[in-house]
Amino acid sequence: MYPDSIKSLIESFKFLPGIGEKTAERLAFSVLELEEEQTDFFAESLKDVKSKIHKCSICNTLTEDDVCSICNSKLRDCELLCVVEDTKNVFLFEKLGMFNGKYHVLEGLISPLDGINPEDIGLDKLIDRINEEKFKEIIFAFKPSIEGETTSLYIKRILDGMNIKVTRLASGVPIGADMEYVDSLTLERALSDRKAVE
Amino acid sequence: MYPDSIKSLIESFKFLPGIGEKTAERLAFSVLELEEEQTDFFAESLKDVKSKIHKCSICNTLTEDDVCSICNSKLRDCELLCVVEDTKNVFLFEKLGMFNGKYHVLEGLISPLDGINPEDIGLDKLIDRINEEKFKEIIFAFKPSIEGETTSLYIKRILDGMNIKVTRLASGVPIGADMEYVDSLTLERALSDRKAVE
Repeated sequence: MYPDSIKSLIESFKFLPGIGEKTAERLAFSVLELEEEQTDFFAESLKDVKSKIHKCSICNTLTEDDVCSICNSKLRDCELLCVVEDTKNVFLFEKLGMFNGKYHVLEGLISPLDGINPEDIGLDKLIDRINEEKFKEIIFAFKPSIEGETTSLYIKRILDGMNIKVTRLASGVPIGADMEYVDSLTLERALSDRKAVE
Repeated sequence: MYPDSIKSLIESFKFLPGIGEKTAERLAFSVLELEEEQTDFFAESLKDVKSKIHKCSICNTLTEDDVCSICNSKLRDCELLCVVEDTKNVFLFEKLGMFNGKYHVLEGLISPLDGINPEDIGLDKLIDRINEEKFKEIIFAFKPSIEGETTSLYIKRILDGMNIKVTRLASGVPIGADMEYVDSLTLERALSDRKAVE
């Protein structure tokens, strides 16, 4: 029904998560409205991302170089390490602009129910790095969940006796949330983690 | 903050309507999860759509050929013409599969308030075609709106005396709609266009 090239473009958009037939059709037609330079730029970017992007050899963050700009920077605090579960979270923290340490990206979180065991998330590389570099504090920035807690505890136990401060992100009531919509686990955590009013 | 090629891909997704920063970021990262064949196919499709697709020289439908497959078909009813405001609507009707006539795509609808006058929507081509081909009925399949009505009436007046039946899509209560949510203009039209129960 559609001309072949439109059909192919609709199929292409459907490769992306959350994009179904209708949205793919709408997007494909909107491509027809773009300038040729824009579609060329788009096509090049798609190929570039696939060919140029890989993991930083030190911290696993996505980068176009062998070592990412954060690992390479002389301006960052080398004694502070933030461990995240996904490379996207590095960019989240960088956007905040208030963290000046280094990062390490795991390949997910320990989740025995999903068959993801400690040896599957790249812990060796993290432990090797911790043994080599002189971190004073390691922050776990995992999502608050069973998997996050399991992973934190597992790594914490390996680090025991290494004289490194181990912390995690605070959990609690999100800023701006209505109390009645906060789930009970979050509320429980907010209560047990309560802070002195200063 | 992001590597250059990811940044470019995020910018590319933002060319598309309804895609903001957050969604563009999510989509760009999802491209990293695709197979290289998929991104190559995606990139090719983008370029192909731009280079191969143009308007059918007879009816303006988007096609890769000089004359589209519908205009070229010997199996379609040559006496029935459906006039639409946008090429997308041709595909909508084709999906239904219950219309077997020909189409003509205008370049929009008359809308004096937006500065779109009769000479801006490609009426000459339509009138030339009507004079040349032997249509018995012309259906206006415009969206029910001031612009749709204006355009219908304007063309109707040109066709007066040509012995062609001129019709429009029925307006009324959509199937499955709750009566209380139907707006008053639609209800008014549904009442004045009421049909005998047979």
